[in-house]
Amino acid sequence: MHRFHFRCNECGANYDENEVRLTCPECSSLQQPGGVTRGVLEIELEELPTSWPEASPASAEFLHAFLPLASTDLPPLAVGDTPLLTVPELRRELRMPRLWIKDDCRNPSGSTKDRASLLVVAKAREYGYRTIAAASTGNAATALSAVAAAAGSEAVVFVPASAPDAKLVQMLAYGARVFPVDGTYDDAFELCLEACDQLGWYNRNTALNPFTVEGKKTAALEIARSMVPEVPDVVLVTTGDGVIISGVAKGFADLERAGLISRRPRLIAVQPEGSNSIADALIRGAAEVEPVPDAASVADSLVVQAPRNALLCLRQIRDSGGAGVVVSDSAIVRSIARLARLTGVFAEPAAAAALAGLDAALEQGLVAKDERVVLLITGTGLKDVPAAARAIERPEPIQPRLDAVIERLEQ
Amino acid sequence: MHRFHFRCNECGANYDENEVRLTCPECSSLQQPGGVTRGVLEIELEELPTSWPEASPASAEFLHAFLPLASTDLPPLAVGDTPLLTVPELRRELRMPRLWIKDDCRNPSGSTKDRASLLVVAKAREYGYRTIAAASTGNAATALSAVAAAAGSEAVVFVPASAPDAKLVQMLAYGARVFPVDGTYDDAFELCLEACDQLGWYNRNTALNPFTVEGKKTAALEIARSMVPEVPDVVLVTTGDGVIISGVAKGFADLERAGLISRRPRLIAVQPEGSNSIADALIRGAAEVEPVPDAASVADSLVVQAPRNALLCLRQIRDSGGAGVVVSDSAIVRSIARLARLTGVFAEPAAAAALAGLDAALEQGLVAKDERVVLLITGTGLKDVPAAARAIERPEPIQPRLDAVIERLEQ
Repeated sequence: MHRFHFRCNECGANYDENEVRLTCPECSSLQQPGGVTRGVLEIELEELPTSWPEASPASAEFLHAFLPLASTDLPPLAVGDTPLLTVPELRRELRMPRLWIKDDCRNPSGSTKDRASLLVVAKAREYGYRTIAAASTGNAATALSAVAAAAGSEAVVFVPASAPDAKLVQMLAYGARVFPVDGTYDDAFELCLEACDQLGWYNRNTALNPFTVEGKKTAALEIARSMVPEVPDVVLVTTGDGVIISGVAKGFADLERAGLISRRPRLIAVQPEGSNSIADALIRGAAEVEPVPDAASVADSLVVQAPRNALLCLRQIRDSGGAGVVVSDSAIVRSIARLARLTGVFAEPAAAAALAGLDAALEQGLVAKDERVVLLITGTGLKDVPAAARAIERPEPIQPRLDAVIERLEQ
Repeated sequence: MHRFHFRCNECGANYDENEVRLTCPECSSLQQPGGVTRGVLEIELEELPTSWPEASPASAEFLHAFLPLASTDLPPLAVGDTPLLTVPELRRELRMPRLWIKDDCRNPSGSTKDRASLLVVAKAREYGYRTIAAASTGNAATALSAVAAAAGSEAVVFVPASAPDAKLVQMLAYGARVFPVDGTYDDAFELCLEACDQLGWYNRNTALNPFTVEGKKTAALEIARSMVPEVPDVVLVTTGDGVIISGVAKGFADLERAGLISRRPRLIAVQPEGSNSIADALIRGAAEVEPVPDAASVADSLVVQAPRNALLCLRQIRDSGGAGVVVSDSAIVRSIARLARLTGVFAEPAAAAALAGLDAALEQGLVAKDERVVLLITGTGLKDVPAAARAIERPEPIQPRLDAVIERLEQ
């Protein structure tokens, strides 16, 4: 048994594993419907490895060493252990000799969300839940559906009916019970809360279930392990609810506590103009976020009215010496093709936005060109082909004759 | 320098690396336009490792040990090293306790074709070619585009204009020069041949460029390495031109020659009813394939009129004690959802067809339920969402209210 306790990120109260399930009982009494989540619990492991495990980061041994798991009996899907790419062409164009891409498109369902789902489904099995529910803009629901399918658990998911079709079809193929909601992600989030309360399902909602932040920390563990003996100076993370960036922060914090890295990188939250609460609070130096009631962006995965994990992630980003940057939808669309063309990584808008965010961070002097910089690319472009189609020009078909080829080349 | 020579799979003539580039000069004089490729060259390495390298199968060290590469300077994209999944739910349903899935959806562009492209782009760089061309039903072109983008090479690709949109958009995003051809894959193949001849591009056409078979052998190396000390009894491979299955055969043959496995598995080629030349020849016991002029299937990646690599792959499949099976389009579509639901692997039609092929092979007594069986899943379902949509039922949106959830649950 790997011992840990929960600690409320607001009041600092500690709870044993069996005392609470989702949020701090005290602070969650302050919860406003539709508002940021109050009383998000962080996980504190009693013991961390003092040297890197020999086993691969995708192995049960590695995961058990760093995660709050009772055993090494994990859902049978290989999550994480994604490549850290050296991207020579992009380095050359940006004149950044120490730039890397962490290609999380390579997860089983195609996004970083698989990392959280692996841990949540493992915990659901430990706790004896057969049904696990989640609200999602699309990727978290798909990730839950994939891991639950492999594990023989049941997934129930609530997503905006407007989610990209690929995500909807994918989660349905995995056999999830899907409720497309006539409404926003925030509506789906509240509905999932209520349904779990009433129907006894385990709730995987991000920034509510404490294992979502914890599960995503493996991205940071892998980045740090790949870079030994160096440590990144900056990691850019595209941000919606603020859970992926919290997971990354938690990973580096655990590694610093374990003595496996000497210092933590600065974290930069990248948000689209149309859904910018967290970046805006960072830029204004505000203690609280302002919700965006009409949030909208081509980067559907980042669209939230109230970023549920705002309180925790604002503190972590500030602690890291980090910042927030905001990028336009047109910069996001352009970055899809630029990233693919210069790295071979084809990303969805919410992921390619990290490259647009790097441009902004360079311009604002938040990142220097000689620093060790990692872009976390959170999801594959195949999740939203119509968005990618806006980034490219489509050639007309030609007749299968050499003269047609030559004519086209001469145009 | 890793020494090797080419050997013609038809006449057995040997050639040094610098004597030939694509096919056997003797046998290729028998080439019929639009027919199977004559004089496909196999690669014979002078030396193979006598023990498994410590390094990961995605590492340059591992690849250099087994592939005909002059150096460890490879295109900077992490190809292969995909998981071999134990699929407990599918094992239970099929009552096959020793079934595995090799999940090649996890390659950078989402298909097995990345394996061939990695080697071809590496060889193009050795030979001094800046531009590499390929004809493809979609995945090979996308794979070439991705690897070329990462390496800073130029990709020129010829694809049927009818290829799934995701594949077209993806290759365009990678910055390839794309020629959608008003015609079939076979038309695109012939056009690419002519264009390379006239314009001096390096030709990556599968079953023509000898490094395509060789590159794909890494799938077999990884399967064997993951299963040590066991060896698979059967591997099922969905088949179009017959190059992936030849690569798998070559990998196991090299391992047997190196003494790293004690025997080779039987290989079963799975083809759709509408594009079944190779399986048909195996079933009939025929020496030559019959082309299918009106080839068609939902599994677009498998649709070929004349399977270019027929001669080599028929011999290898027979040598392995293997067979061919044919599956219907409706069985293929059903297997998309079944595979996803029971394993968490969401595959394109041409890949999910392996599961339909397993059903057929079991029914025909070609595979026993207690054998060690591996399904190679060659490409992600996100490549062709419209096909996957045929495999699922779409729920209507609900209002964001608990009573709507409960009402739907009671239906």
